[in-house]
Amino acid sequence: MTELGELSTPFLWADEAVLDDNLATMAEAWPRTSLRPHVKAHKTTAIAKRQAASGHTAFTCATPREVVGMAAAGLGADLLLANETVDDKNLRAMADADAAVTVAVDSEATIDAAARNGIEAVLIDIRVGFRCGCAVDEAGQLADRARTAGMEVRGVMGYEGHAVGEVDPVKRAELVNGAMTRLTAAHELVGGPIVSGGGTGSYVDNTTVTELQAGSYVLMDTAYQQQGHPFRQGLFVEASVISVAPKYVVLDAGLKCLAMDHGNPTIPGAQVVYCADEHTVVTTERHVTPGDRMTIVPAHIDPTMSKHRELVVGRDGSVVDVWDIDLRHW
Amino acid sequence: MTELGELSTPFLWADEAVLDDNLATMAEAWPRTSLRPHVKAHKTTAIAKRQAASGHTAFTCATPREVVGMAAAGLGADLLLANETVDDKNLRAMADADAAVTVAVDSEATIDAAARNGIEAVLIDIRVGFRCGCAVDEAGQLADRARTAGMEVRGVMGYEGHAVGEVDPVKRAELVNGAMTRLTAAHELVGGPIVSGGGTGSYVDNTTVTELQAGSYVLMDTAYQQQGHPFRQGLFVEASVISVAPKYVVLDAGLKCLAMDHGNPTIPGAQVVYCADEHTVVTTERHVTPGDRMTIVPAHIDPTMSKHRELVVGRDGSVVDVWDIDLRHW
Repeated sequence: MTELGELSTPFLWADEAVLDDNLATMAEAWPRTSLRPHVKAHKTTAIAKRQAASGHTAFTCATPREVVGMAAAGLGADLLLANETVDDKNLRAMADADAAVTVAVDSEATIDAAARNGIEAVLIDIRVGFRCGCAVDEAGQLADRARTAGMEVRGVMGYEGHAVGEVDPVKRAELVNGAMTRLTAAHELVGGPIVSGGGTGSYVDNTTVTELQAGSYVLMDTAYQQQGHPFRQGLFVEASVISVAPKYVVLDAGLKCLAMDHGNPTIPGAQVVYCADEHTVVTTERHVTPGDRMTIVPAHIDPTMSKHRELVVGRDGSVVDVWDIDLRHW
Repeated sequence: MTELGELSTPFLWADEAVLDDNLATMAEAWPRTSLRPHVKAHKTTAIAKRQAASGHTAFTCATPREVVGMAAAGLGADLLLANETVDDKNLRAMADADAAVTVAVDSEATIDAAARNGIEAVLIDIRVGFRCGCAVDEAGQLADRARTAGMEVRGVMGYEGHAVGEVDPVKRAELVNGAMTRLTAAHELVGGPIVSGGGTGSYVDNTTVTELQAGSYVLMDTAYQQQGHPFRQGLFVEASVISVAPKYVVLDAGLKCLAMDHGNPTIPGAQVVYCADEHTVVTTERHVTPGDRMTIVPAHIDPTMSKHRELVVGRDGSVVDVWDIDLRHW
């Protein structure tokens, strides 16, 4: 069996034991289709298959590419594009996929585009304090327009993105509740069985939605880890020391394999000075020489995953599998 | 002929006219092998072929993957890995490639690893104020060790990375000169015909090196553009409006397709509020509706290129080619 230490660096790897624990913890708290896992966090159908095996058979996608790829992998029982598009080619590809596809709409233009390309079901996306979505008082007439165009309106969605990253639990609960009050008001105007929203960050606080769109919980990151949820970090970039200067050490993994939008990654036993394209410069008390390994913990899971072609799966230091990160790109 | 406006967004594209102009401008200033173009900026053998056609047949690479890929594309006349490694598998792959390969070394460990894996030529990498490299006074004995191990020592390299990003031209020239004084001192201890270093940022100021390792000049970015060099920006991410709120507009391209390490991208006619995974939120005076296009100018070329599978090549609004960004990953 190949050991992780035998692989050339840099490479992205997941701790399978942590993944399995996180999947089990979430499946207990939000069982079956009360969780609609967001595949944008991992973009990997092999992970989606484990989520499906944990009981979650309905999925959230961020891009048409993710929807079409999930369908091709046999995971098309109930796919939501939680995002707007008026692109005829992408809408048609989703409508033609071997899947039950629902798309988010928030305007007449997005409804008309979905209808003319054969999309059969929509959620009305509500602006609950963040980014996309229509105003609450527009929701009813948009639902009417979608129904008139022959589509099923399954309900509403609203993503409280301004709340899920809040570290203070009291403030976070307030923000979530404010957003969900709006979503509930819109749902009364729209109807349908589904109220969809939330993420790993509102795992505890969101008691409104009928389905939680959590993604990061599978392998976590340093940003989400600060919130004290019961999920553990299981995603790492393995790097090698390549150069040792008197005051610092240079590693062979840089920002082309680590997302920087949530700040620098962290390294147990070392301090990150900065990341460059293909290097991370660190200080450490350890005596290190070229070839020594360091394990980097990414600050943000989603865009770190999307920089890599493959995810090495490790258990107790051994390589147990290599998964294709197959839902990347557009 | 397909128009750029017909392609589904988001996609990365290059303006071929700008590319050709930039190539011609550089080939006049640093002709033939006085330029050793850095392929890390674009990771695309199709662009490297244009650089070779402009007279530059020796290349700089950041990763073993780039070296092996350049060799496989028939561009192996003189490839420099301007980076340290002690990885046996990668060193052996480069030694076995159909190419003349030189690697940078800065320690006994990197020299010994190169020698035992069949690498035939090295440059001694000098720490000229930035990141990797040995101290000036270690350079001579490292060169001796490499020669004793049977390798050709072609000279020295030193990257003045602390200087190339400086916007103030007086300060930049001072930093470049200080770094090159060290490199010259090391070269006297090492010997060999090559003094390699620099980048697009020291295109004017570096009068020391026998070969300039510039990469970004091919398509530029907003960070380098501030320095007033004669190269123009020719790299863009095309995005569509997907949602219109009263005070802002949401685009379908986010930080998974735009590097954020040099700050936010810019958009002519709009102000970027923030980038999220798959969205950019902007304000604009323009009246826009879903489906309208916006052209995003990346802040940093290298890590933006490495997020994309393909580079669409445009001229006068038409698609003239699509190039595989084939040197990505590790």
